[in-house]
Formats: sequence, C-alpha cells, structure tokens
Amino acid sequence: MPTFQTVRGMRDLLPDDAEMLNFVMGKARETASLYGYREIITPVIEPYELLSAKSGEEIRSRMFTFKDLGNRTVALRPEFTSSIARLATTALKNEPKPLRTLSVGSVYRYDEPQRGRYREFYQSDFEIIGTSNPEADAEIILLTDRLMKSVGLRNYAFKLGHVGVIRGILNENNVDEKTQNAILQRMDKKEFEEAFKLVESEECLSTLRGSLELKSDNVFETVERIKSHVEGYCKAAASAEELESLLKLVTEGGCAIQSVEPAFARGLEYYTGMIFEVYIPELDIALGGGGRYDKLIEVFGGEPTPATGVAHGLDRIVLAMQMQKAAPTTEKRKRVAVFPITEALKGEALKVSQMLRDSGIPAELEVMGRKMNKALEDADRRKVDYAVIVGERELKQGAVVLRNLAKREQTVVEVSKLAKTITG
Amino acid sequence: MPTFQTVRGMRDLLPDDAEMLNFVMGKARETASLYGYREIITPVIEPYELLSAKSGEEIRSRMFTFKDLGNRTVALRPEFTSSIARLATTALKNEPKPLRTLSVGSVYRYDEPQRGRYREFYQSDFEIIGTSNPEADAEIILLTDRLMKSVGLRNYAFKLGHVGVIRGILNENNVDEKTQNAILQRMDKKEFEEAFKLVESEECLSTLRGSLELKSDNVFETVERIKSHVEGYCKAAASAEELESLLKLVTEGGCAIQSVEPAFARGLEYYTGMIFEVYIPELDIALGGGGRYDKLIEVFGGEPTPATGVAHGLDRIVLAMQMQKAAPTTEKRKRVAVFPITEALKGEALKVSQMLRDSGIPAELEVMGRKMNKALEDADRRKVDYAVIVGERELKQGAVVLRNLAKREQTVVEVSKLAKTITG
Repeated sequence: MPTFQTVRGMRDLLPDDAEMLNFVMGKARETASLYGYREIITPVIEPYELLSAKSGEEIRSRMFTFKDLGNRTVALRPEFTSSIARLATTALKNEPKPLRTLSVGSVYRYDEPQRGRYREFYQSDFEIIGTSNPEADAEIILLTDRLMKSVGLRNYAFKLGHVGVIRGILNENNVDEKTQNAILQRMDKKEFEEAFKLVESEECLSTLRGSLELKSDNVFETVERIKSHVEGYCKAAASAEELESLLKLVTEGGCAIQSVEPAFARGLEYYTGMIFEVYIPELDIALGGGGRYDKLIEVFGGEPTPATGVAHGLDRIVLAMQMQKAAPTTEKRKRVAVFPITEALKGEALKVSQMLRDSGIPAELEVMGRKMNKALEDADRRKVDYAVIVGERELKQGAVVLRNLAKREQTVVEVSKLAKTITG
Repeated sequence: MPTFQTVRGMRDLLPDDAEMLNFVMGKARETASLYGYREIITPVIEPYELLSAKSGEEIRSRMFTFKDLGNRTVALRPEFTSSIARLATTALKNEPKPLRTLSVGSVYRYDEPQRGRYREFYQSDFEIIGTSNPEADAEIILLTDRLMKSVGLRNYAFKLGHVGVIRGILNENNVDEKTQNAILQRMDKKEFEEAFKLVESEECLSTLRGSLELKSDNVFETVERIKSHVEGYCKAAASAEELESLLKLVTEGGCAIQSVEPAFARGLEYYTGMIFEVYIPELDIALGGGGRYDKLIEVFGGEPTPATGVAHGLDRIVLAMQMQKAAPTTEKRKRVAVFPITEALKGEALKVSQMLRDSGIPAELEVMGRKMNKALEDADRRKVDYAVIVGERELKQGAVVLRNLAKREQTVVEVSKLAKTITG
C-alpha cells in the first residue's frame, strides 16, 4: 500500500504549529471571559437548509454538502453564526438577553487553497444577541482589538463600514433584495463596475459612484461626508448616524479605527448594519471580521431579535504572528527524562517518573530500552533539561543521579528531594 | 421558515456542558504534558482509503463517507490512530523515536444515538510510536489512570487482555486473518457461540472454550492460568508472557488492574498486542480503551514500526463525572457588571469596563439600554458578584459606585482603586 497524504486543502498541524493555534484559542477564551461571553459547542455537521439559508451564493456553492446514512442532506458548517442563530430560536430562546456566546473550532469551505487559506480552518466566533444598541457593536470591535493585542500583533488596522448606507440608497430606488445582494457581493470583491451594471436608475448610479469618492484620511471626516452625501435617503442617513455613534464609542474605548469605507461590503448576505474587518500590513487577507445581523434570527423562525458578532480567522492570526515574529507567551516547564541503568530497574525508574509527575514535573521515561549513552544523546538533542539516572548503587541509599544536561553537571539526590531540587 | 433542529445524532453543548468538556480536554492536555506527549492537530476530513484500511468492518460501515467537490472519496475520521499512523509514514517519518503524540477533538460514527453515544463525539488520543517494550504499554495505561483521577472520578476499573492469546491459538490452527477478525469481532460483542461457529478444528474450539474459564478474581492468578492453558501454542504463550510483564509494570507504577480477561477483544482490527478498557460501575460503556498495534504503520507504507496507544471518550468522561457528582475544579473569577446611569454616560461606562478588563477582571457592560433597577435585577439573577454604577455626580470626583450584589452593600470607590478593591 502506498503512503497516504492529507486530502487536498486539508493539513496537519505538527506540534509547534498546534501549540501556536492552541495559544491563540486560549487567548480567544480568555478574551471571552473578560467580556462575559460563554462558550457553546455546536456540531460540525448541520442541516444543509440551515447553513444555506442566509449565507449567500458564494459560500453556499463552496460548502461540503452530502447525504448521511439516514439520507439527510447535511453540510459541514462554513461558519458559526447560523448555528448560534439556530440556538437563539430553540434551546436558548428564553435565556435573558443579551446573550453573549463564544464558539471556537473548525469550519469548512471548498476554496482554492493558498497561503493562509485552507478548506478546513479555525475560527473564534463572538456573538451578542438581543440588542440593537451601538454599545454592542463597539464591544465586538473592542474585544477583537484586545484579542489582536493579547497575541502580540502590532500595526493591525480596522476597516469599518455600514451595509445600510449602500442598501439605503438602493432601497430608495426600489432595487429588490436579490439584486442588492448581487451588487454587494460584487462590491465585496471590489468589482465596482460589474456591480454598477446591475443598477438601472441613473440617479441611483450617480449616488453610488459618488459614495466611492467620500473617503478621507480622517475617519470622522469620512463619516461627515457620508452623512451629507446620503441626506434625503432616509435609511442610509440613519445608517450613517449609527456609524458615527459607533465610531465615537470605539474610540472612547481606546481602539483606533484606521479607515471608514463608504462602499465596504462583506461576503455574507445576512448583515444589516455595521460591518468591519481587521488587517495587518503584511497580509492582504482579513484576520477577522463581522457585523450586525438584525434579521437572521427571525428568518430562522424566532422572534425579531437584533444581533451582532465577529469571527476571527485563527490560522491567519497564527500566520500573522509568524510574520511579525510574535512568539506565544506560554510558560515553559522543565523537562525531565528518566533512565534505568539496567533492564531490571525499569520498574523503579517508572516509580520515580510517576513521583515526578505527581509533583507536576513532566517526566519522559526511557521506553526504547537503549544504552545509557545513546539515551542521553537523544535527550540532549530533544532539549530535555534534566536526566534522572536510576542505578542500583544510588537506589540502595534511596537516591538517584540528577544530571543537568545544559550545564553537563551531575549530583546524587535523595529520591524524596528530587522534585524540589528540580523545581528549585 | 420553521425553526431548525440539530441533525439526528448531533448535539449542542450549552455553556455548563461546554465548560465540563473543556475542563476534561484541559486535563488531557495537562496529562500529555506530564508524560511528554505533544499535541498534533490532524484534519477531520481524511481519505476514505486511509480510514477504512484497518479499522474493521464495524466502523467502516458507519463512517460518514462522501465525495468532495473535487470528486475525491473522503470520510470524517471515526478515530485518530489512522491519521497519526499516516503522519508516522510521512511528515514524522524521520523524527527520533519514541514519538509521543496527543490528539484532541471530534470524531464521527453513524451509530444509533443513546445515552453517552452520539454521532459526533470527542476523544483524547495518546500514541507512543517506535517501541515494542511493555514500558510503553504500561505508560499508556498509567496516563489513563492519571487522567481519570485528575477529573475526579472514583471506583474506575481497568480491564486488560492481549489479542495475541486468542490469535495465537487460531494461528496455530491455521485460521486465516479474515476469519480471525470475524471471530474477534464477535467475541468483542460477547457473541461467543457465534464466534465459535467460525472455528472448524475441534481441538482449537476446545482450547478457545477453555480460555473463557480461566478468569480468577486475582489478576496475577488469571495470567498464570492463561500461561498454563496456552503452553505449546508458541505465539499465544509469548503473548501471555507480555501480559505478565505489563501487569507487573502497571502495578509497580501505582495503578491497580481489576480484571484480566483471557477472551477480551476490541472493535478495531489493527490491534496486535495488549488491549485494555476502563469503566466506572455506574456506566456500562468504556470511558477509554486502547492497545498495541505493531503492524498498522507498515500497512500504510512505512517501515515496520511498533506502536501502542489509547483513546479516551471525553463525552463519556463528562457523563461519568456528572453521575459521580465530580465537579470541575476550575477557578471562578469575580464577575462584574457595569451600568451607566444615563445614556450620555455610556462612553464613560465603556471606559471603566475596559480598565477592569485590563486588570484581568471580567466586566459585562450594560448594552440593553435598560433602566438601572431592571439591569440590577438581571445581574442578580445571573449571579454577577459586583455592579459598578457610573453616575455623573461620582464621576466628577473620579469615582463610581461599587455594589456587592450578594451582600447588598454599596460604597463609592475611586476609579483608580476600583480593580484593587474588587480583587481584594
């Protein structure tokens, strides 16, 4: 049989990479705890109908969809929001609001694999359900800022917009929702001319084109310009006001927004309000993004329930950390290898190992049956800190040999004092 | 649109359950660290050929198998060992041995849902690759013992066997491997008469039947009886010797084995040596199990490489903890809710929240725009420890009101001293 490879688009995270991803996941959980979000674990496999309802054609066509053995059409989740919205209409329907949830895990999209983009990738997803106040939107952005900072990233920048500005202009011109979605999808890809082809009214077209020209280096100035530009477009104007309140709150919370984009759109169809993304200069893909989705929960059969949230691309954050040489700040514990001098002493060596572990010291027992020299060489190569050598002579005195591999020094230590000697 | 439910066999873990599962996952990682196992993250989606090669008909027929958009036949992993064996023949081929790996995550089997059995479930999987010494097998059992203990389980019991005993008897009677697998599969389900129907030789049948009668309450006595029973069956006798060494080592390591089962078998086909499972009296499904698989890696195109490992059923461990009322020992942090007295103060309230989080204190900002009384009531119900009330008058003095919700006491505290006052 030939050797097997991973399926195209899938990948293995070997120990150093797995440690990085776990570190970032830990920071996401820590951030959630600081903001009062509690973790919920939903299935990877969900009903196709649930996942496809409002995700948009782009994602829908790239889902891993199949029939299970009970002939149900199911799919692997391409994101978490639909699953959380499902819960908000069922098991969590009667929970006091706001509901603050965290999800952490793998999601699946059949995209073309490239740097920072895999078909199985990891997200942390924060949702706050039950309020339309801009404080909630501000919180989502601020916790994203905290997560970026806590993993050691620098120079990251936030891009902020509001789908209500463009949708408000289109609404006023009676463009139906499906066409709106198609227009926003193209704008998301910066295919503006393609997007504008779908607009019939000359007046609408000119307002849309004009909105592309509003960007200033000063984000507050940009918001002012948007406000003037959409004067008279009732819903667009209200959206611009919301954008302004949000920008103020986020700034008060200590997080700078680097750009406000009047014609900003995102891939998912369910957004109804503010949208944002965060980038580092070294990478042209977003490390995270989200927005407000006030209609999704009612589409899923719940009461009308406003909500806002964000998903962070954890693999991309790991990649960003590697590019910026931001090392995880996990505490390194002393590593100890335990060697019996003879075959007959392996039970004793095992006992010493167990005792060290009881004291919280990682102990790797020699299980290869190697000669001492070879085993010590190997321990050296694997950057083990101490070798504990269990020999007949010392054991008679209730002791073992403790060798500091870096310093190449060794002493005889009583077994009862071994753990303390190692931890210092 | 009607509300959506989870797909049959799938389930949501709401916050308390998710916390339990995360607690157990944390203990698995802590155990791995103490024994020198490093975590590897492999994909949920693997080639069907890889997963089906040696898993056995039972599991093969219950896999979630489908074609991806590139027309590849893939499946969701029903266990981790095949993925780790794949790595041992590819990316980790040249790593120094022993290779000690941990995998933690979800696996998928289309079984009939029942208590403690779901179609998506969680495992921690420990593998030690590159040695056939019984120390390695002992380590796998001892770390399982430590995991059970560390999550607070009591009265759990280990069941130990060796597939080489039965296979050795069958080999001597020239029973082919496929029939051996069928026999062991039936024995695994305790369908002994069904299993024996597949045996042609009368002598073989009588030896097999006899092996069912060897069990004693004393595990060392059981091993002695097995040794005598298979005298003359060369491979079976060697297996009994291995079982004896292993039993001694595990006992020296401080872990008691409650039963040695001469006719014990497990569902997976790839086992070649010792096998074991761990149970609590309250549940008739194993909380974990594993064994030695010395041929799998060469089947996957690698060098002949002995290996042994274990998978722990994390959902079942959570269920066992609930049955034994073993609570997770996670430290509870003080929870604080922050309320602005007026709408105009929400930016200030946000600043105070951010400052608390900077000091590592979880702060939930009021985002519902509720009246103070209603917000306080809600905080009380959600068992928040402190309310911080941000009002105009106190803020002028650089202070806020700190209310201890349990004690129903409140004081005015300077903002700069707030975090310290809360942490005490």
